[in-house]
Amino acid sequence: MNNQHFPWLILVPMRGDLREIYDLSDVDYANAMGEIREITKIFSELTAADKMNVATLGNAVSQLHIHIIARFKNDAIFPKPVWNFEQKALPYSPEQAEEMVKKLCDFIALSSRA
Amino acid sequence: MNNQHFPWLILVPMRGDLREIYDLSDVDYANAMGEIREITKIFSELTAADKMNVATLGNAVSQLHIHIIARFKNDAIFPKPVWNFEQKALPYSPEQAEEMVKKLCDFIALSSRA
Repeated sequence: MNNQHFPWLILVPMRGDLREIYDLSDVDYANAMGEIREITKIFSELTAADKMNVATLGNAVSQLHIHIIARFKNDAIFPKPVWNFEQKALPYSPEQAEEMVKKLCDFIALSSRA
Repeated sequence: MNNQHFPWLILVPMRGDLREIYDLSDVDYANAMGEIREITKIFSELTAADKMNVATLGNAVSQLHIHIIARFKNDAIFPKPVWNFEQKALPYSPEQAEEMVKKLCDFIALSSRA
């Protein structure tokens, strides 16, 4: 998400017509849950988060997607959930966005070599 | 949760000192994700929900717990997430609460026999 207030990833399983977690096949569900666990851990380390928030809501956009959000005791609204945050998003500069994506890719590559 | 606005379960893995999903052992994680999937499906059927919301936040209460919430197109705030809902909770009567717990137990028993 393009909002500096919260480091925030959205995972989208590359399958069509999914709305609920139980719409995934057994194998896809196991893989998705494994990836959620890995990415949550990696993103926590990368951001040095105080707490990770993981959620699938889909009330507005029904295609199955999973939010992974790094929270900090000193972030804009901690301990409130991000979804009651009415203030304007603070976009990354293109350089900041590129750096975060690069860091994340490096962390994922490092983790899958481990 | 004792709030008629949203049928809302909270699952708590029976393990001490867990904060993040990746604090669960491999086996416990697989079991927990399996149970989340089952309960989400059962609770969706039981409540005839339009959309299920599944989330682990833990910003205020850090012990690992998972929210499973049934949402309806005509509920109090759909499609907004429940966490920006500032209105007062609407408690169940003891009879309503007992009935919902009984129904859920029946659904779980039925599902595990299937």
